[in-house]
Amino acid sequence: MAKDLQSYVTKVSNSPYFINITTIIIIFYALVLGVRTYESIVIPLEDLFLFLDYTVTIYFLIEIIIRMVGEKEFKNFFKDGWNIFDFLVVVITLIPFEQSDYAMIARLARVFKVMRLITVRPELKMIIDVLVKSIPAIVDIIILLFIIFYIYAIIGSFLFQDLESGLWKNFLTAMLTLFRVLTFEDWTDVMYEAMEKYEMSWLFFVSFIIIAAFVFFNLFIAVIINEMEKHSNKDQHEAEQEKLDLILSKIDMLEKEIKDIKVNKFSDKE
Amino acid sequence: MAKDLQSYVTKVSNSPYFINITTIIIIFYALVLGVRTYESIVIPLEDLFLFLDYTVTIYFLIEIIIRMVGEKEFKNFFKDGWNIFDFLVVVITLIPFEQSDYAMIARLARVFKVMRLITVRPELKMIIDVLVKSIPAIVDIIILLFIIFYIYAIIGSFLFQDLESGLWKNFLTAMLTLFRVLTFEDWTDVMYEAMEKYEMSWLFFVSFIIIAAFVFFNLFIAVIINEMEKHSNKDQHEAEQEKLDLILSKIDMLEKEIKDIKVNKFSDKE
Amino acid sequence: MAKDLQSYVTKVSNSPYFINITTIIIIFYALVLGVRTYESIVIPLEDLFLFLDYTVTIYFLIEIIIRMVGEKEFKNFFKDGWNIFDFLVVVITLIPFEQSDYAMIARLARVFKVMRLITVRPELKMIIDVLVKSIPAIVDIIILLFIIFYIYAIIGSFLFQDLESGLWKNFLTAMLTLFRVLTFEDWTDVMYEAMEKYEMSWLFFVSFIIIAAFVFFNLFIAVIINEMEKHSNKDQHEAEQEKLDLILSKIDMLEKEIKDIKVNKFSDKE
Amino acid sequence: MAKDLQSYVTKVSNSPYFINITTIIIIFYALVLGVRTYESIVIPLEDLFLFLDYTVTIYFLIEIIIRMVGEKEFKNFFKDGWNIFDFLVVVITLIPFEQSDYAMIARLARVFKVMRLITVRPELKMIIDVLVKSIPAIVDIIILLFIIFYIYAIIGSFLFQDLESGLWKNFLTAMLTLFRVLTFEDWTDVMYEAMEKYEMSWLFFVSFIIIAAFVFFNLFIAVIINEMEKHSNKDQHEAEQEKLDLILSKIDMLEKEIKDIKVNKFSDKE
Repeated sequence: MAKDLQSYVTKVSNSPYFINITTIIIIFYALVLGVRTYESIVIPLEDLFLFLDYTVTIYFLIEIIIRMVGEKEFKNFFKDGWNIFDFLVVVITLIPFEQSDYAMIARLARVFKVMRLITVRPELKMIIDVLVKSIPAIVDIIILLFIIFYIYAIIGSFLFQDLESGLWKNFLTAMLTLFRVLTFEDWTDVMYEAMEKYEMSWLFFVSFIIIAAFVFFNLFIAVIINEMEKHSNKDQHEAEQEKLDLILSKIDMLEKEIKDIKVNKFSDKE
Repeated sequence: MAKDLQSYVTKVSNSPYFINITTIIIIFYALVLGVRTYESIVIPLEDLFLFLDYTVTIYFLIEIIIRMVGEKEFKNFFKDGWNIFDFLVVVITLIPFEQSDYAMIARLARVFKVMRLITVRPELKMIIDVLVKSIPAIVDIIILLFIIFYIYAIIGSFLFQDLESGLWKNFLTAMLTLFRVLTFEDWTDVMYEAMEKYEMSWLFFVSFIIIAAFVFFNLFIAVIINEMEKHSNKDQHEAEQEKLDLILSKIDMLEKEIKDIKVNKFSDKE
Repeated sequence: MAKDLQSYVTKVSNSPYFINITTIIIIFYALVLGVRTYESIVIPLEDLFLFLDYTVTIYFLIEIIIRMVGEKEFKNFFKDGWNIFDFLVVVITLIPFEQSDYAMIARLARVFKVMRLITVRPELKMIIDVLVKSIPAIVDIIILLFIIFYIYAIIGSFLFQDLESGLWKNFLTAMLTLFRVLTFEDWTDVMYEAMEKYEMSWLFFVSFIIIAAFVFFNLFIAVIINEMEKHSNKDQHEAEQEKLDLILSKIDMLEKEIKDIKVNKFSDKE
Repeated sequence: MAKDLQSYVTKVSNSPYFINITTIIIIFYALVLGVRTYESIVIPLEDLFLFLDYTVTIYFLIEIIIRMVGEKEFKNFFKDGWNIFDFLVVVITLIPFEQSDYAMIARLARVFKVMRLITVRPELKMIIDVLVKSIPAIVDIIILLFIIFYIYAIIGSFLFQDLESGLWKNFLTAMLTLFRVLTFEDWTDVMYEAMEKYEMSWLFFVSFIIIAAFVFFNLFIAVIINEMEKHSNKDQHEAEQEKLDLILSKIDMLEKEIKDIKVNKFSDKE
């Protein structure tokens, strides 16, 4: 009978209804969290919000137990990184942070519950997986970009350290200022201030924008686009390769047949 | 005779002259609407503008009737979403909003008349159709982007709720502020204000920009570019596939022929 | 002897030395124009600058005469749009605008002389030609983008006409304001002002940014990238197609040969 | 014995441990340089920082000697541009700038030491090499972009020379202002100021943005993306080409075989 129960649970845990119900509950909970940011609404309804919080926590607990039981071999459950994430979300939300001083962690835990939307929908999980897989292709460009940032931050904090705005007062602040320049956000204000000290400062900023923003940033985008394309054109190219291989093997076979005929011919002659 | 009339109307409704006349009238009407925004011009010429308005409305009414009659089977007319759009535009412009309190709807209806430029030109309709077809490829990325926005909006409205600028006062305002940060529009002003409260706030903004603007937004662009390319390289790849298939089938035939020769050979020998 | 002269001039006009000398003179003249914007330098050296101006004008006159004479059939010279451009530049610079009231045209004519750098170098001409060839692929998207601009400008100038900033005071100003929003340039300032009048104005701006900047603008970029790729991968794909065609024709030949053998076989039997 | 030593040094200089140790030392030194920008930390620990500086300089000296000795033929060492860069870094850091007036050069030399991270890691060297190789493909577009900048700078400095902001006071300043407009950085401020003098100035700015930022800048990105794709799809296309060539050569062989059979057949008949 235990076996019957388990196979029933497996069926439930894989059914689209189960996934859809979880999706709806998460979206509903996300809306509740959104409403909760309106202070005038929260105060009179605080009990209701706490009740909803507990309900969703309990649903998540039940949901993960169903999925754990539904898994044919229990140890496989934790082999999937996404399942570990779900498990941690449930564990953290079960810790009674509300009554403690860690109100901020409690709130963050609530947000993590909404992130479960990603783990519930296979399509969303797949995009994240593709992104993770394309990291090795980008990592070297990120290192190079970081080296460029680093060099400009060191030079910048050395040249402009005592500017009034304090945008270059130390290494980390200089990095943040350069990040700002990378997004073109009021970068001329930063430059004009620096040009008052050294008139040639525009060279520093213009060269940084050309190297970091124009060249390397676009390289970064080019690699992402390229990875996406490879991923999406894979089937097409594989089909082509397969056909070419098939043609090659067929021609090899033809060759053998023809050689056979030839040999027969000669043996014929004799 | 009714049939003759109908086939004549069909000819008219499909003729390029008819399409071009409608195009010219819409462009002319668009110019009129543009001129109408100059208040000093409108007041003395109000009657002229009203007259032009009615004329175009009547032309559109006649135009849609011609196209309806020109359709071989009347029920097919409403099977095309674009025709329904045209029909609604005519219906709305026929309702006398001008005299009522709904002046705003009247003005919007006028703008919709200009949107008919899209439905008149097949090339423009096609671009919109391609865009609509590529929605399924983008929808998951949009959902992910929305989840990222949502999480940052909840955290942001929790951390920075009481900042003076009121940029994070509730969930919707926080979403709008994040959208602003996504476009890099004065995002450092928002950050510097937040950093006065929590010094580490830059982590919130820099991580949001890296995740939302750099990674996901570029993913979004990559998918659009990829869809466009697939659409435009389709013919080329199909031609290649066809040739490969042709080669394969020809080789199969060759094989059969050679086997035939071989069999004949052996039967020959006996 | 006239013939000898002509063939000699043709040789000169096609020689790389001639092209390089012209390039150097244009670059030198461009530098002179740059120096001329520093008022403190210009006043004492005005005569020198005028002399240089005349020299370059005369060189251009000689250069175009050499190229005209060098052309084998004179009428072919004006068949190339680039030659017409060069000719017009020479004609305009020969008109003595300096002494007249049209100082501005004189200055523009000087700038046009620098633009001749494009017509001198074949590589630069080619890029412009590629761009011109890709216009048909973009033109429909530009029309759609223009319709979107138009609709938002009409609605915007209707809703926000009486805002203090005057950014929506009439159709053209509204178009300019929308162009500004498209470049994300202080668009929130425009939005916050509008939101003071209608609280829901953010819908107007956010929808415009999503439709115009995110979707259509990226479509525009996607098409340009696609055109570039097509142009640059053409050789590769053509090589592939050629090989496939070659394989197909060879297989057809093989087939014929094999059929020949078969027929011979049967005729053999008889 | 000298030979034994040399082959041992060659082994060391190629071993991953050696490369990893150098990497770790550079990263450690980079962190030290970062910390050094915090003035409050530097003053009490100045001696420590000087000591670390000397240590790293000496390590680099030893490292480059090992690599020089490890090179099988000494003259090959300087054939690689990267090795020359490394050598120059060591030479410059050995010059005692600290005690001299050239403190700035001393600091820059320190930053160059961190740039050695690129030369240590082969992956990073490769990206730079790819970038350098794609320069010929971009150089013409950069020249065109520069011509556009030049023309607008000349016209701008002529039209707006006497504006209060001084953004167009001479050619170089005008170029910088145009670069700012290219990044969309507060370009409307520049435009609105210009429009106060000439109402039609928006034409100048809007046309510059459309030509320089929309068309040419995207062309520039398109070429970079295209180069990247070519580089990364090279293997795939080469594999395809190879297979097609193989098929062609095999078919040629088949043809010969079949012809052989045919000839034999005829000779048979006789």
